[in-house]
Amino acid sequence: MKKVLLASTALVLSAGIAAADVSVGGSGRMGIISNVDDTTTTNIDESDLGFTSRIRISFSASGETDAGLQFGGSIRADNAVGGNAGTAGSVFISGTFGKISMGDVSGAPEAAVGDLSGVGLTGLGDYNEFVYLSNSDRPAARWDYTVADLGLHVSADNPRDDNATTADPALGIAVTYGMGDISAGLGYETTGDVDHIIGGVAAGFGDATVKVIYGSADDSTAADLDFDQYGMSLDFVSGATTFTAYFRTVEGNGALAGSGSVYGLGVSYDLGGGASIVAGYVDGDDVDPTSAAFGSALTNATYDAGISFSF
Amino acid sequence: MKKVLLASTALVLSAGIAAADVSVGGSGRMGIISNVDDTTTTNIDESDLGFTSRIRISFSASGETDAGLQFGGSIRADNAVGGNAGTAGSVFISGTFGKISMGDVSGAPEAAVGDLSGVGLTGLGDYNEFVYLSNSDRPAARWDYTVADLGLHVSADNPRDDNATTADPALGIAVTYGMGDISAGLGYETTGDVDHIIGGVAAGFGDATVKVIYGSADDSTAADLDFDQYGMSLDFVSGATTFTAYFRTVEGNGALAGSGSVYGLGVSYDLGGGASIVAGYVDGDDVDPTSAAFGSALTNATYDAGISFSF
Amino acid sequence: MKKVLLASTALVLSAGIAAADVSVGGSGRMGIISNVDDTTTTNIDESDLGFTSRIRISFSASGETDAGLQFGGSIRADNAVGGNAGTAGSVFISGTFGKISMGDVSGAPEAAVGDLSGVGLTGLGDYNEFVYLSNSDRPAARWDYTVADLGLHVSADNPRDDNATTADPALGIAVTYGMGDISAGLGYETTGDVDHIIGGVAAGFGDATVKVIYGSADDSTAADLDFDQYGMSLDFVSGATTFTAYFRTVEGNGALAGSGSVYGLGVSYDLGGGASIVAGYVDGDDVDPTSAAFGSALTNATYDAGISFSF
Repeated sequence: MKKVLLASTALVLSAGIAAADVSVGGSGRMGIISNVDDTTTTNIDESDLGFTSRIRISFSASGETDAGLQFGGSIRADNAVGGNAGTAGSVFISGTFGKISMGDVSGAPEAAVGDLSGVGLTGLGDYNEFVYLSNSDRPAARWDYTVADLGLHVSADNPRDDNATTADPALGIAVTYGMGDISAGLGYETTGDVDHIIGGVAAGFGDATVKVIYGSADDSTAADLDFDQYGMSLDFVSGATTFTAYFRTVEGNGALAGSGSVYGLGVSYDLGGGASIVAGYVDGDDVDPTSAAFGSALTNATYDAGISFSF
Repeated sequence: MKKVLLASTALVLSAGIAAADVSVGGSGRMGIISNVDDTTTTNIDESDLGFTSRIRISFSASGETDAGLQFGGSIRADNAVGGNAGTAGSVFISGTFGKISMGDVSGAPEAAVGDLSGVGLTGLGDYNEFVYLSNSDRPAARWDYTVADLGLHVSADNPRDDNATTADPALGIAVTYGMGDISAGLGYETTGDVDHIIGGVAAGFGDATVKVIYGSADDSTAADLDFDQYGMSLDFVSGATTFTAYFRTVEGNGALAGSGSVYGLGVSYDLGGGASIVAGYVDGDDVDPTSAAFGSALTNATYDAGISFSF
Repeated sequence: MKKVLLASTALVLSAGIAAADVSVGGSGRMGIISNVDDTTTTNIDESDLGFTSRIRISFSASGETDAGLQFGGSIRADNAVGGNAGTAGSVFISGTFGKISMGDVSGAPEAAVGDLSGVGLTGLGDYNEFVYLSNSDRPAARWDYTVADLGLHVSADNPRDDNATTADPALGIAVTYGMGDISAGLGYETTGDVDHIIGGVAAGFGDATVKVIYGSADDSTAADLDFDQYGMSLDFVSGATTFTAYFRTVEGNGALAGSGSVYGLGVSYDLGGGASIVAGYVDGDDVDPTSAAFGSALTNATYDAGISFSF
């Protein structure tokens, strides 16, 4: 409702007269992918090859206060509705106190340890990504603080008691350490009756980079949905070409993380200017398709190939 | 459907070869808010504190015809779908004949009188906003014309007979007057059997600005859903800090506007560069939660605090 | 999931550090339209006049590889969700091998022959657009290659067997030829048991441009849903004014394309700077409203008028 007689706080906020800035970027891809299903996962055979394409536009907004604090936010056009609600994208403010972010923000352990290197044009199920308890009730918040080679990260999911989820909001804490070509992260997160501790190390050896992650979760309820997850990835750069391999195993007994072993192989050739030729292959053993937490069901080996764009 | 043999009108329209321009801005916020509920409003207690965050991207397009007419439009990324349908955002053309706008356009009384100053990071229910009959069937249209200190505003909701709504489209007319630090607006709108007359005055006294609004609606049907609404807001600027207070009362007997009294207190501290620290508190008496028109139900005092961003 | 220990392929792809670019444009319109219905098409009479308005924002991303290949993509803000899924917008890469596009991409026949010139501010049902079999299962792909005055176009809908649609993916091939003020296109497409051949010629005679299109489809199933479609359009430019007329007839016996004859008259006056005054009128005979493929039902003559904007 427009205000014409009196400039209100809300009007000032939306006036956009500030010396802040919004940059527009994006990404895209075009190629082929195997095992494309529509709404069912049955009757998929390995010859089920399809096209895959995508165009995304992303916005990055930034500004600086008179006292030199940096602030900003980012969102994509395709999830702008979530950005309005605080469930997609994020905002931040940073200064000597560190950086505070809110929105679709990874928990502290995920920020510190992250995931293995992925493969393929589309990610091929993103089985390289680890299970984290945080960032399930948004907006989530995280505080990042760096001193010399050390980083400290603290996070919390939305603490509201919203009547919809009975679980306590996830809380997380993590530390990171970097020295030369080696970086390491260690994190702990908890929500309700489940604790999760996870650590990882990445080390560069010339053209190669190795990353190892191990995580273990303990469920103190009668359901005893404990799980361990671990894996390793290798990136090898040869000129414009990057070869990537990973494996990841989840040993769980239920809905929290599922179970199974997956490996992936990928190659990316940098064409310059933001374009790359990318191909990947992923297969697994004993993947439990009933667990959404492990990622999508992997009933067959999958592969893709194509060109990725960054704008 | 692309046309390659012959440039059609539609193709020319979308070619974007004009000397017109689109600017990209946005807004964001991060903070805490009380009484956050999910889908139900029961079982909320005052200790129910949660995070709140948002990132919005907005577009403002503008151009000028050879004869010097200004035209343009605006829409946000998160309601772009509505902009395509004419139910969100708006377009305009302006010249010596005034300005004609269409889309999600406030009716003439709302354009002339508006609302009281709001408080808080999130608006806290926007109880400072008055009930208007117009802009309920979109695209709506409005004509604004200014001569010296006088402004004339005429508006109409979409006049189509769409079989979905039986009510006649809302029509509105209003005048505004500004002299020095005083501005005033008076408007009348009608839809079907309901008439609404509303007026307001805003006056600046040094660092203080006072706004008073009074509106009265008459329903000539047997239901007799009359209502009166009135309120006052005060903004006081002290350096970089703006203090705001408002109260608003609705005396109604039904679904048109509900009933109750609400007051709000707020403070905003300008950090410069588009960022502000904002906090607000809102409480009410005898608020009838069955009326959506009065705004959301206010079962407890609510408050929020955080940082707002403008990009 | 953010990766901090090791830059992965996915992270590099989304980093947006490339020397690529995204331009922002848009279009808008405001005016009146007849026969506006809401959710039903009954009880519409010719006096049922309404407002129509729209604001659209569009993004065009582009880049160039080190070897000089052009790539890019485009999407609108209002269909950005489809762009993420490959069902709206498109991406492309082009070089001496021609141009390969994927996404919401017209089939080869549509790319070569296209549609007649349309009329009106809103398109008034887009009855000037021909029925094509391709681009019904997305992402679709097309290869365009030009040598001298000849163009070759080959297309395929998504070839995946997705269990949801039993039809084979549409395949298409087409050629185009241009010499002076004359251009022509001929295309063939097939999906399952249906074949479609379509050709068109556009010729400029001074201020006038004439376009003629004829297409014929053969259905080899027992349903025998054959159809013929043909029409002509004329554009005449007089200073800043363009007059357009078209007629189009579909002779079919079922769901593939319906049946009926429609004509349209339109005028567009260029105001400069991206704005035009546009009006149109469309009426038809014996239009079968049961076929969505022929376009929306045309139960009465329709007309619109207003101002269109290009940003």
